Amino acid sequence: MTATPAEARARYRDGLVAPTTGHAPGFTQANLVILPRDWAYDMLLFGQRNPQPVPLLDVTDAGSFRTTLAPEADLRTDLPQYRVWRDGELVDEPSEITGLWRDDLVSFLIGCSFSFETALMDAGVPVRNLEQGRNVSMYETSIRCRPAGRLEGPLVVSMRPIPASLVATAVQVTGRMPQVHGAPVHVGEPAALGVRDLAVPDFGEPVQSAPGDVAVFWACGVTPQAALMASRPPFAITHAPGHMFVTDVPDSVYRQP
Amino acid sequence: MTATPAEARARYRDGLVAPTTGHAPGFTQANLVILPRDWAYDMLLFGQRNPQPVPLLDVTDAGSFRTTLAPEADLRTDLPQYRVWRDGELVDEPSEITGLWRDDLVSFLIGCSFSFETALMDAGVPVRNLEQGRNVSMYETSIRCRPAGRLEGPLVVSMRPIPASLVATAVQVTGRMPQVHGAPVHVGEPAALGVRDLAVPDFGEPVQSAPGDVAVFWACGVTPQAALMASRPPFAITHAPGHMFVTDVPDSVYRQP
Repeated sequence: MTATPAEARARYRDGLVAPTTGHAPGFTQANLVILPRDWAYDMLLFGQRNPQPVPLLDVTDAGSFRTTLAPEADLRTDLPQYRVWRDGELVDEPSEITGLWRDDLVSFLIGCSFSFETALMDAGVPVRNLEQGRNVSMYETSIRCRPAGRLEGPLVVSMRPIPASLVATAVQVTGRMPQVHGAPVHVGEPAALGVRDLAVPDFGEPVQSAPGDVAVFWACGVTPQAALMASRPPFAITHAPGHMFVTDVPDSVYRQP
Repeated sequence: MTATPAEARARYRDGLVAPTTGHAPGFTQANLVILPRDWAYDMLLFGQRNPQPVPLLDVTDAGSFRTTLAPEADLRTDLPQYRVWRDGELVDEPSEITGLWRDDLVSFLIGCSFSFETALMDAGVPVRNLEQGRNVSMYETSIRCRPAGRLEGPLVVSMRPIPASLVATAVQVTGRMPQVHGAPVHVGEPAALGVRDLAVPDFGEPVQSAPGDVAVFWACGVTPQAALMASRPPFAITHAPGHMFVTDVPDSVYRQP
């Protein structure tokens, strides 16, 4: 579904529920975490202290459902699907959250690896999950994030199998995009990350390696969701996995020269 | 005074009051802002929204005087000089703040352009303020920072005269160091920034241009101090200008490849 960002958001607002991958190509998509003001300081500090998994692209004023990343958008209605969390438990997956809105809610827009997948392909690096039409494989690791107040949890990584001859290219291309997770955190040797079996991801879907591929791991925007599940704030809203916020910001803005 | 970072901090702790430029060369120096927890959210958000003037290198837990940037250091004693602010007014410039410490204080360590001056010289770009033994010239501009809660204020810039043939080099070198203010915000044409007379800086000292130099402007770490003066929190502590916190982090850590 090629469309402008505004057209894509209008379709979600009108009720379309679908993963956003491939929609409005060339524009940055973002993870969304919404928390009460009482928890917002911890989340903001968690992002400051863990910039690779939690690159904060925008943080709204309390009560505002507007973001500088897409000034016309309404964060309550313009994502295809949301998740509602109470005390760390998933309780609902609605397609809009107007009825849940409160004046003390702060929205965090967080960079997403979809942006660098485009850059990888532009550089001739195959992206196996896209070739196979699957969600990327994600794993909880044995690395702990640096805690911030009540928020703590494991680093979650996404894994992409990369041909050995293109690993250096993949590092260089994504290293130029620190606001969308940046360079890999780990190359090869899954066991050293505490990942036992690549075929059994904790989130997403299994992705097949081709012969000669090496497993390359990037910090993942699911990390803050894992921290929310571990830290159990009384109330939180996030995007549903793969159902991201489509911004008006071209991917190229987050590519350094 | 060449010394290791730990030696330099020990001298300040023992009473030396002196600007830190040239001390512990090759190691990152940081701006310091200390605020009560009640104001810390606004400061953290101000940094998130204005990363060029306010690149946050570390934010401490409330009450802690320890930072990951130098784990052995004590933020209450290890800077050569501090400034104490009450209701936005400067009330004291002590050499240590142990007696003022409170359990609700949060410390913000903010990147400093001293780091990129080393990188400029390494690249063959002359740094006129260092040649002339002067503090860099700084100016309030007509550009407003993006507000965050109660904090707002003007963008403050530092200016360095750069030979016209080396402006591009200066942009490229500092562009690789986004955590210490990054690329210039403005090149030439001071009036377009609201700067009327380069010979009369708002902070620091006048610096002479050489024939053929162009005025190049970088976002400056004095910006948060200007916001504090404008927004008047009841209590704040900062470093005294030029009397920075010397960290254990090599400058090279903040240089991207």
